Parts: sequence; structure tokens; C-alpha cells
Amino acid sequence: MSDSALLSGRRVAILVEDEFEDLELSGPLAALRDAGATVKVIGPTAGAQFKGKRGQATVTSDVAAGSVRMKDFDALVIPGGHAPDKMRMRHAMVDLARDAMDAGKPVAAICHGPWVLANADVLEGRTVTSVPNIRRDLENAGATWVDEEVVVDQGLVTSRTPDDLPAFCAKLVEEIGEGRHGQQARSVA
Amino acid sequence: MSDSALLSGRRVAILVEDEFEDLELSGPLAALRDAGATVKVIGPTAGAQFKGKRGQATVTSDVAAGSVRMKDFDALVIPGGHAPDKMRMRHAMVDLARDAMDAGKPVAAICHGPWVLANADVLEGRTVTSVPNIRRDLENAGATWVDEEVVVDQGLVTSRTPDDLPAFCAKLVEEIGEGRHGQQARSVA
Repeated sequence: MSDSALLSGRRVAILVEDEFEDLELSGPLAALRDAGATVKVIGPTAGAQFKGKRGQATVTSDVAAGSVRMKDFDALVIPGGHAPDKMRMRHAMVDLARDAMDAGKPVAAICHGPWVLANADVLEGRTVTSVPNIRRDLENAGATWVDEEVVVDQGLVTSRTPDDLPAFCAKLVEEIGEGRHGQQARSVA
Repeated sequence: MSDSALLSGRRVAILVEDEFEDLELSGPLAALRDAGATVKVIGPTAGAQFKGKRGQATVTSDVAAGSVRMKDFDALVIPGGHAPDKMRMRHAMVDLARDAMDAGKPVAAICHGPWVLANADVLEGRTVTSVPNIRRDLENAGATWVDEEVVVDQGLVTSRTPDDLPAFCAKLVEEIGEGRHGQQARSVA
């Protein structure tokens, strides 16, 4: 991740809502920028401030979810904490997640983040991990759940907790570097 | 609920974990005791203190979930907040919920509380409500989800948010007063 040219020109969207798991947003954000990616923080509205659940991180949204489309981005990142409980109520955020998956673009979700993918109805047949608390929800959404620090399934990168961040960020950068998984793309977002 | 003899002799278990929605525990607790019920607060351990997510309520657990069985109680109450995200990781709590449902005893869950019933695998074919954030999880668990202040389905009482507490508590007391729904009891817990 010290190679700042690795993701040069790549545009990545990170979803945000209040009470995100602090390191699960700040960690991937730093890793992606270190690798040269252009990262936009996508909130329910633009220019709003969001606080991490531990009070360690504060972030301001660059744009509103409803004002962008996945064609403007090469990948999507969904952090965890209590934030995904709120994100899944935002239709524009759920639509971004569905469009990213449908287009075969890399999507990375950690902790409670995969809930957004359950609402996007894109987990049928996919292999994922998550914080164990939501395992049943992901299985009921059609996913196969495994207990590993990071799982990569055709561009879908998932991890369990902040302890997994080194592996999560490394795979995330790697998948975005590889680009779109054409064989699974069902439509172009 | 001013009739303190209404639930005299009835034993009710209320589940607790940290960051419960303050009023969703304190409200039903007061309503049940006002109606004459004997209420026990069931935590992951006995004698531990739990705090509401808003800092308005603190409660000490009477007994540990692993040391009781539903045959010791006539009904089960599951409050919401962030607590159910933790409760569903406690096998003993999930077992109590399954046993209560299997025995046809009244079960009342509000807000995020019905998640525990998803883990207990008892929602297939049931009609429920909840905070809308977890609607998809309950539907994926087999439930029919409706948007009403309180839903009663064969002894299963569900509500959406603290605003629904008056209706939730009234139905809860009524259902416990009626007792077990024998026709749906599949086994005796």
C-alpha cells in the first residue's frame, strides 16, 4: 500500500452514517488514499458531519447518495458499527450497493456493513463473513457464511471486525487494482 | 393496567443486555408490575448492571439466562435498542425465546427485539412488526411484516418504537392475562 500509483485514477465511494465503527471508515479511507485512489465519502446528504460510535473519528460527507450513481465510481466500501442499521434505511445507498454488485465492481463490507447488501438483495449464493451477530441475517438473505478474517468472492470483500482491517484493506486495494469482475456483471450500472 | 390483581401469580421474564432502548425495558417492566406480575430481569449473568443506550435507565439482572428455563415463566419480553444485537449472540437467550414460542406462551418483542426470534428460527409464517430497519431480516426469516403500532399473532406481540409503548404494554398485559395459546403449542418448554 506504499505504492501511491497502484490505484491512481480509481474512484472509490465509501458510505457513511452516524455511529460508524471509527477505524472501519478511517482505516480503508487512509489505505485507499495511500494507494492513490480518489475517495468520496457518500452520506445521506452532502457536507454533513458524521461521528464514529467511539468518538475517535469524525468525517464530513462529500456528496449525497441520491446525487451520484455507481457509474461515477470503480468500487464501493461499506464500514460497520451502528451505521449500517441506518444505511439500510436509505434507498439511495442500497441502490448504490445493488448497482455496484450488478456491475461486478469491487464491493467491500466489514462488520455490520453486509446488512446493506442484504437489503440490496445481492447475497444469494455469495460467500461472505461479518461480525457474527448478523450471521443469521446474511444466511437468511441467501449467503454462505464463513468465519475468516477476510473473504473474497468475485470482487466482494468481507471481514468481521476492526481486528481484520489489515487483511481487509490489503484485499480491498488488491481487488480494486484488478478492477471489474466482468464474468459476474449482469448489467452496467 | 391499574388493576394490580390482573396478572397476580404470573411470572414474566424480560431479557436484558447493554445498550437497551431505555423506555422499552422500563416501560413494560413497570406495566407488568403494576398489573401484579412477578417480573425477573434475565441477563447473560446474574447480578450484573446494564445501561440503557440513552443513559436514562439502569437495571440489574436478577438471574442468568443459562440458569433458568421457560417452564419457570409464563411469558417473555424482549426490549429493543442495540441490546438485541448482543442478545442474539447468547445461546441461552435464543433458547428461551424458542422455548417460549414452542410452548405457545406470550412473547412480546419491540423495535430491534424481534431479531432474537429470527435467531430462534420461530418466525416462519408469523405476522410481525418492528423498527423498519430490520424489516428485511424478519421477512428473510419467514415473517410477514406489517407497519402497525402493535401486532398480535397467536400470543406473539410486536411493536415498532418507543412511541408504540402504550399499545404494546396494553396488549402485552392482555395476552399474558389470557395465558398460553394452546393450539399453537408444539411442545412443553
